[in-house]
Amino acid sequence: MQIQAKTPEGFYFYTASAGYYSKKRDDLLIVAVPDGARAAGVFTTNRLKAAPVRVSEQLLAKQKTFGGLVVNAGNANAATGKKGEEDALRLAEFAREKTQAEYSFLIASTGVIGVYLDVERIEQAIEEALSNPAVGLEQAAAAIMTTDKFPKYAVREGTGYTIAGITKGAGMISPSMATTLTFVFTDADFSEYLMSKAVNRACEKTFNRISVDGETSTNDSLICLSSRKKRVERNLYQEFELLLTDLLNELSLMILKDGEGATRILRIFTSGFRNDTEADLAARAVGRSLLVKTAAAGADPNWGRIFSAVGASGAVVDEFRLKIYIEDICVFAGRPLEYDEDILKNLMQSDSIDIKIDAGLGSGESFFYTCDLTEEYVRINSSYRT
Amino acid sequence: MQIQAKTPEGFYFYTASAGYYSKKRDDLLIVAVPDGARAAGVFTTNRLKAAPVRVSEQLLAKQKTFGGLVVNAGNANAATGKKGEEDALRLAEFAREKTQAEYSFLIASTGVIGVYLDVERIEQAIEEALSNPAVGLEQAAAAIMTTDKFPKYAVREGTGYTIAGITKGAGMISPSMATTLTFVFTDADFSEYLMSKAVNRACEKTFNRISVDGETSTNDSLICLSSRKKRVERNLYQEFELLLTDLLNELSLMILKDGEGATRILRIFTSGFRNDTEADLAARAVGRSLLVKTAAAGADPNWGRIFSAVGASGAVVDEFRLKIYIEDICVFAGRPLEYDEDILKNLMQSDSIDIKIDAGLGSGESFFYTCDLTEEYVRINSSYRT
Repeated sequence: MQIQAKTPEGFYFYTASAGYYSKKRDDLLIVAVPDGARAAGVFTTNRLKAAPVRVSEQLLAKQKTFGGLVVNAGNANAATGKKGEEDALRLAEFAREKTQAEYSFLIASTGVIGVYLDVERIEQAIEEALSNPAVGLEQAAAAIMTTDKFPKYAVREGTGYTIAGITKGAGMISPSMATTLTFVFTDADFSEYLMSKAVNRACEKTFNRISVDGETSTNDSLICLSSRKKRVERNLYQEFELLLTDLLNELSLMILKDGEGATRILRIFTSGFRNDTEADLAARAVGRSLLVKTAAAGADPNWGRIFSAVGASGAVVDEFRLKIYIEDICVFAGRPLEYDEDILKNLMQSDSIDIKIDAGLGSGESFFYTCDLTEEYVRINSSYRT
Repeated sequence: MQIQAKTPEGFYFYTASAGYYSKKRDDLLIVAVPDGARAAGVFTTNRLKAAPVRVSEQLLAKQKTFGGLVVNAGNANAATGKKGEEDALRLAEFAREKTQAEYSFLIASTGVIGVYLDVERIEQAIEEALSNPAVGLEQAAAAIMTTDKFPKYAVREGTGYTIAGITKGAGMISPSMATTLTFVFTDADFSEYLMSKAVNRACEKTFNRISVDGETSTNDSLICLSSRKKRVERNLYQEFELLLTDLLNELSLMILKDGEGATRILRIFTSGFRNDTEADLAARAVGRSLLVKTAAAGADPNWGRIFSAVGASGAVVDEFRLKIYIEDICVFAGRPLEYDEDILKNLMQSDSIDIKIDAGLGSGESFFYTCDLTEEYVRINSSYRT
């Protein structure tokens, strides 16, 4: 009840199992907004977008108000051609009808690529979900999980309004313009323009700066719905954007924490590059380096791998001006420095490791978050059809 | 003796141990060309080039003829600043003196980053190597190994000349403009211009199209030496380039076969893209996808991961025109196709898997080779300081 109390006004969550996982686990979520919701979304930059992404993008381009959202986990409805689109539209319409909503539903899917949806089974699950009592945010988050080990949700209280979010994901994570599946619910009544602005800016600083495995999926979607129940002054926009960024930051770190096989988070901060773009290149290159990520798994202060990844990133760097820090200990400053390996190794055996790289060339800075790469990641992803 | 017989004329190989590995294993190679060698090289695009790369590039820009080459394994002499350059020059000069050569020596190093060379120990090893009898190509290849499980060498016989090559590498492999360490020896007397042309073109089609882990090292170097002992007609250039490409292809596949933890090679062929550049983007994206590489480890025909990687590659693709083949079985053609999973799974349990992607949009084509990603890769690279 505590969680439900925190949910923004005007949202109702219903879940059921369509049987894509064990019958005991819900894998279908309906978010109903009886009085209609204003919506903003960011979607995958993958050119082979899944059918539900194409359908939701088309709907968002056409209309401003939605009756809610239907999400299924276990089947991504990707690589399913025209039939995939028809299935997605049919399910969205079915959810609208059954909730007797005035406005269309948006749709999102996650799971295996290349298999047609079992539409009838999902329709049955929609009916079943709507016959159950509404659930709280945690259960809503649990119903969209795939390989996740825990449900991911967070709430922020603003001045007279609430923002709540749920997300899912553990692998195939390197969102570009969005992530995995993330849904944000708020009762704050900001204009469509301000909502879109806040969503895009918050996403850029959070979900667009994390990676588990460098894979941008066909289904990445971030959809924000506002029930418009709480009047807010325009001058609260700044607060709203900050709270939304903070919320998405918390959710994106949950994904890294749950990264397939991950044991720790790596935070990479770059500064002193010629410009922010090059600082970004360097941070991303280090964050995506398999050798850096495996060294982190072994808590090995093998900074040569960081050095090499920075050099190969495309950013301009000069060996004689470059500094590298691991957990605030400077290990390289134009030349290899002496440091106590045992102390550093111990510091690295924690939940989170900070790597700082200063190029000494300008004021460009950036950051990127990732997780370590362990044998468990390979085990999960090489076992037959995960 | 058989191998030595195949070596091109005018080259002498000497090896010894400088003690970077077990004393029983040689880790130092001297290639002496008493009558001088014409040289061409391609080097890493990593901006933090190791000292020996900087030194060899400078030497190649200044002069045309070299007395030979000195290579040490176990220490990359990278991230070692000015002192690293001085050490590299000192060793190259020491090798020249001890062989009483008229011309300078080139130098290459491979191994751990960020540790100064033990110059005296390597000088001792140079003296010891030169006091030993000359060795064959296999022993020369063995002396430049780091995490390699076997020495990598190959020979091609041309019309009146010979080309031999050695290479090393198993991890940190995603060469750009070169690879790891590769040395090619020939007695064919082509002009500097033609030698450079052949080396660049052959490298582009071989070493620039392989990846074990997407890491471009600080030390990647490919150096070709010609002893100029065999006069060749200019019209044999075409043959020379073909043989060189074939030789480098064989050597680059040896690296993938020995890829850290690898159990099989993946060959990705792309066609039907708008142009070769986009075909190349797609082939590289599939070849670098951790999810594709882990699926290959499990012999799982999970083509959805190939589909997603192509979509995220940046190349223009259209789901309705796209076709995906695994081992010549079409699994997707605008929609998911039915196929016998057991048959495909069995086909995939081989040393090499072919993946073909046809975009159906134009005549752009490319290819890229990689290996699967296994738990063993992670085990090797997360163990302390490899």
